[in-house]
Amino acid sequence: MNENTRTLLLGVSTATLTTVLFKHGFRNVFLQDVRPLNPDAARVVGPAYTLRTIPAREDLDGLDAFLDPAHPQRKGVEDCPPGSVFVIDSRGDASAASAGGILVTRMKMRGLAGVVTDGGFRDSPEIAAMDFPAYHTRPSAPTNLIRHHCVDLNLPIACGGVAIFPGDIMVGDGEGIVCIPAHLADTVAEQGAAQTEYEDFVLSRVQAGHTIRGLYPMTDESNRAHFAAWRAAR
Amino acid sequence: MNENTRTLLLGVSTATLTTVLFKHGFRNVFLQDVRPLNPDAARVVGPAYTLRTIPAREDLDGLDAFLDPAHPQRKGVEDCPPGSVFVIDSRGDASAASAGGILVTRMKMRGLAGVVTDGGFRDSPEIAAMDFPAYHTRPSAPTNLIRHHCVDLNLPIACGGVAIFPGDIMVGDGEGIVCIPAHLADTVAEQGAAQTEYEDFVLSRVQAGHTIRGLYPMTDESNRAHFAAWRAAR
Amino acid sequence: MNENTRTLLLGVSTATLTTVLFKHGFRNVFLQDVRPLNPDAARVVGPAYTLRTIPAREDLDGLDAFLDPAHPQRKGVEDCPPGSVFVIDSRGDASAASAGGILVTRMKMRGLAGVVTDGGFRDSPEIAAMDFPAYHTRPSAPTNLIRHHCVDLNLPIACGGVAIFPGDIMVGDGEGIVCIPAHLADTVAEQGAAQTEYEDFVLSRVQAGHTIRGLYPMTDESNRAHFAAWRAAR
Amino acid sequence: MNENTRTLLLGVSTATLTTVLFKHGFRNVFLQDVRPLNPDAARVVGPAYTLRTIPAREDLDGLDAFLDPAHPQRKGVEDCPPGSVFVIDSRGDASAASAGGILVTRMKMRGLAGVVTDGGFRDSPEIAAMDFPAYHTRPSAPTNLIRHHCVDLNLPIACGGVAIFPGDIMVGDGEGIVCIPAHLADTVAEQGAAQTEYEDFVLSRVQAGHTIRGLYPMTDESNRAHFAAWRAAR
Amino acid sequence: MNENTRTLLLGVSTATLTTVLFKHGFRNVFLQDVRPLNPDAARVVGPAYTLRTIPAREDLDGLDAFLDPAHPQRKGVEDCPPGSVFVIDSRGDASAASAGGILVTRMKMRGLAGVVTDGGFRDSPEIAAMDFPAYHTRPSAPTNLIRHHCVDLNLPIACGGVAIFPGDIMVGDGEGIVCIPAHLADTVAEQGAAQTEYEDFVLSRVQAGHTIRGLYPMTDESNRAHFAAWRAAR
Amino acid sequence: MNENTRTLLLGVSTATLTTVLFKHGFRNVFLQDVRPLNPDAARVVGPAYTLRTIPAREDLDGLDAFLDPAHPQRKGVEDCPPGSVFVIDSRGDASAASAGGILVTRMKMRGLAGVVTDGGFRDSPEIAAMDFPAYHTRPSAPTNLIRHHCVDLNLPIACGGVAIFPGDIMVGDGEGIVCIPAHLADTVAEQGAAQTEYEDFVLSRVQAGHTIRGLYPMTDESNRAHFAAWRAAR
Repeated sequence: MNENTRTLLLGVSTATLTTVLFKHGFRNVFLQDVRPLNPDAARVVGPAYTLRTIPAREDLDGLDAFLDPAHPQRKGVEDCPPGSVFVIDSRGDASAASAGGILVTRMKMRGLAGVVTDGGFRDSPEIAAMDFPAYHTRPSAPTNLIRHHCVDLNLPIACGGVAIFPGDIMVGDGEGIVCIPAHLADTVAEQGAAQTEYEDFVLSRVQAGHTIRGLYPMTDESNRAHFAAWRAAR
Repeated sequence: MNENTRTLLLGVSTATLTTVLFKHGFRNVFLQDVRPLNPDAARVVGPAYTLRTIPAREDLDGLDAFLDPAHPQRKGVEDCPPGSVFVIDSRGDASAASAGGILVTRMKMRGLAGVVTDGGFRDSPEIAAMDFPAYHTRPSAPTNLIRHHCVDLNLPIACGGVAIFPGDIMVGDGEGIVCIPAHLADTVAEQGAAQTEYEDFVLSRVQAGHTIRGLYPMTDESNRAHFAAWRAAR
Repeated sequence: MNENTRTLLLGVSTATLTTVLFKHGFRNVFLQDVRPLNPDAARVVGPAYTLRTIPAREDLDGLDAFLDPAHPQRKGVEDCPPGSVFVIDSRGDASAASAGGILVTRMKMRGLAGVVTDGGFRDSPEIAAMDFPAYHTRPSAPTNLIRHHCVDLNLPIACGGVAIFPGDIMVGDGEGIVCIPAHLADTVAEQGAAQTEYEDFVLSRVQAGHTIRGLYPMTDESNRAHFAAWRAAR
Repeated sequence: MNENTRTLLLGVSTATLTTVLFKHGFRNVFLQDVRPLNPDAARVVGPAYTLRTIPAREDLDGLDAFLDPAHPQRKGVEDCPPGSVFVIDSRGDASAASAGGILVTRMKMRGLAGVVTDGGFRDSPEIAAMDFPAYHTRPSAPTNLIRHHCVDLNLPIACGGVAIFPGDIMVGDGEGIVCIPAHLADTVAEQGAAQTEYEDFVLSRVQAGHTIRGLYPMTDESNRAHFAAWRAAR
Repeated sequence: MNENTRTLLLGVSTATLTTVLFKHGFRNVFLQDVRPLNPDAARVVGPAYTLRTIPAREDLDGLDAFLDPAHPQRKGVEDCPPGSVFVIDSRGDASAASAGGILVTRMKMRGLAGVVTDGGFRDSPEIAAMDFPAYHTRPSAPTNLIRHHCVDLNLPIACGGVAIFPGDIMVGDGEGIVCIPAHLADTVAEQGAAQTEYEDFVLSRVQAGHTIRGLYPMTDESNRAHFAAWRAAR
Repeated sequence: MNENTRTLLLGVSTATLTTVLFKHGFRNVFLQDVRPLNPDAARVVGPAYTLRTIPAREDLDGLDAFLDPAHPQRKGVEDCPPGSVFVIDSRGDASAASAGGILVTRMKMRGLAGVVTDGGFRDSPEIAAMDFPAYHTRPSAPTNLIRHHCVDLNLPIACGGVAIFPGDIMVGDGEGIVCIPAHLADTVAEQGAAQTEYEDFVLSRVQAGHTIRGLYPMTDESNRAHFAAWRAAR
């Protein structure tokens, strides 16, 4: 992805991104009920690399499943390009783990940007203590073999109720994570940065005791000059 | 699939099949919360042909989506082999339809064996009145474009919380629908037919006023002779 | 409401209405998980008259609450104009009843067109046997005082996850119920009737063995002539 | 239980019983989301005999569990006194069966009054066709061994979110099932019969076109004479 | 509200308040699943000022909705009296935001006592860092236009499954938030303060190794003297 | 319980324990959605002592219920052996408290090892600040009398969807809590400690930049020597 876009997106909140995408007609871009293990960890921006799961089957998902070097979870962890966000479709089921501390450490060491699931991670206290952006629904100790059969890599998936196509840009902050359709990333980044600047101005005015009337949204033209002055002074 | 297997499975209930599969180590074969629109419709037995969906995206899922002859839902309806069961992974989301009366009628005319989704059908009263086995979670009028993006055909999917691989044998009755892993279908059919015969005997005994002690399961050997006599008399 | 509109809407299914409203940009018009008590009862078309509830409070919702002639539920039942559909916002909570057999009988006698709640009715077997369209989520015997405080009449409400403004046109069939924003009712009725006619043609073609390719939607122009002939022959 | 009480309760709906029990201070007596398999089956009245389950455990709940003559489910089916209602605490989990057609047939043959679970039955089409009152949440084919460990008999349990003590009087109709604390059964039966009579009168008045004002509840004293006349004429 | 009452309530936990209100016959006063964004933020006590929402509608809830100075959310933020608690009925739906950082900052600057929703806030990390009591169910980035139509101000509402009338006293701590019916606030405050004192005494005894028998509740009269001594020594 | 087993289990994570138990055929040992109030509190290991609840009943669960010295909750708190883990079956219902700060303090003073419920605790901020392992689903202020009737002690129960027999070994960490069937505790402790050692080695290798291929699981025999060296060096 474009470096300027990455830089801009690092400064835009997921809340602002949903508003910008709403202006483009998108209503369903925030992964529902998917949250950062460590809200203070660095923000994440990167293209999606996807892993898909279906329910486990007893004859396929014994412990020897991991002996197969082509097992999609293990293969994906080693093959996913640095800078990517590893996104796992766990069908919203956190009753068994989607991944654990060793795999997430390997992702970090390989230079991935982050990891996301709509299931849960095991070893969650360790993952929460790593300086690596990880998002899930809740901690889940059980081995994934109990519930999840990893089936393929880099197909379009569902995660948190949102469509994720490989290469879409995932942006996460302390609130959660948003998926930007790949072809819109540059535009959304520009518009998001602009909106962030105006909202920073609004916040400074509100913190100074001003009303939101006419300011948010700007319907009183006198605020245009205030905004220009604020930008100049910055 | 083997014709003998099909014939045998037409006489085995989904309840009995779950017990037989449990003996083979399978615990998760009954599609949860998926029910027949018309409990009196003929039973269904056939190999799974799968359609996968992810959440809809506003720029991809407008009404012109159906103008594309390669749209997976429409393509699947025309390509699915006669005798198959069309199984749709709707991610358990019945807030918009997975298919409607016209498509289901086309499935019937093309000789499919049945249709299953873990979402809902629209035109459900019409489908319920057709002599065609259809299973869903609940009626759902909204067009699928609102919620479902059909993404590919004949990959392994999840449906009703169960792993469905293309070619697995779907068996449905008035209670619901079970998925038999393809390689086990012949064995399960034989064992299911045998168990059904014994359970029919047990039921006749119980209806005649006998206790279940020693009979269900058979721990009193005297019942072996009764069973032999009952079979001979049949 | 316009009599022509009412007549047209009596012939359009809720499924078709969701498609027509989708073309107008509306995605959320079908009341989720709200179903007819008697799927064979007559269809319903009429303007919404609304009753709003909040959770019950022990000091306000004793049995003497009904002694007050201004109690909104009882007042609404007597005041709601004939031809209207009585729509109750039960906050999706069917753990106590929204109304019962006596009140629904009174609604029928007063000439109302139907009754809808996203909670449940008590005396549901009796209501299901009446020739009066009633929609709910599931049977619920407990008196409404246990859970619901009726608070006001004819304000905008939520029902089944859909915004209902008084005067919006409710249309129900054996599948469920749709809310048409009042100002669009005439247009939607016309478009719905036209779409219904084309879908009836499509269904007749499919029942005769034709493919849906080029027909649904119509991309093969030869179908235009077939459709014209079919209409002429009707 | 008292025969007069049984006779009276056979004529009182579950809806009316919840109102009578509300007058005694009880708000939670209707088993939530538990419904008759066959709404047309005879009503049920009888004392509760309880079976309790906890989650299954793989080393305890293999198929040989039923070889044990003391298995609580099998023992309960043979020991439960005729006239009783067999109530199963399935922890609200219908993902595996609570019982099936053979055991329910045995219950019927032994003279039980009915069977209730907040889980689901397998062989549900067969049970629905029997002339025996059975209540559950939804059909469920899987063998109970997959999810339920039957642990003891005739302890107080939860079922459908309601406390059930052995000996409490279960009353079911086409809507659902209510639990009356044992010590209140006679009183509630008398009061329920009286309220039923008044409500029958109200319904006849409403069907004749009268307003509910002053009638339901009776606040207009002129209705007292009408009621007396109606009773006399009956 | 009475200043003495406010002062007393600042020292009573929500747990103790539910017990005091239970003695007055109230069982449903704690907002379910509604939690503080910052459990360490100051406690909140103040009268409720309410905002009601219904589901969004595409033609009413575009971005220009906020251009209207009468938009209830924006109007409420500017009109709500200082000292009040702003309570939003979001129908328990946190899939889009109920409010965000700028509006909550404005609330704080205007001297409101706190803000509560049974939906979610966007900009939740920023709100959690403010010294302002805010309660919601979970973080939610999407703009409210996607899901919520703000419809009116200061009507009775539902929030967290509890009835909230404007003027009722909301009391929140690190555990959650309780609604005290307005007419009972003074009494409940007095009783809550007294109970808190006794519970503080009990806790000190238990921390010193005493049994709870006879102490909690006080059934051993010797504890009365201990309590008196403890109070005197305080 | 065996002291060596206790010591070993204090060093094994719940994640690792689920894998070891999976090797023994157990799939359902992690209490779902049950989490530590204070993830930093000491780990817990100890035998289960159980309290069972059913739904509250208004005539049994008034405030005077606690005057009875045999009330199971109060009796259990005083009788539970030091070293035990007090496990409460709250039927997964956190809408009222399972216990509060005073009782949990008493448990700590009496030398219990920890407390677990699949409901919620009141006074949760105070409990979270205690140096005592406590696990629940979410904070819940309401008094337990509103929802829970404590019915008996030390029977097998369900908690978090898992079967808990008295004496089973409960092991908790910052992620959640696992139940080990009593007869397997010694074996599982040994195997868990061994697996933990290997996983610590794997983690150190991955942190040093090695691939997981051949290492996790160990399929490349060269890792055996590395592991031996690492152990020797430790």
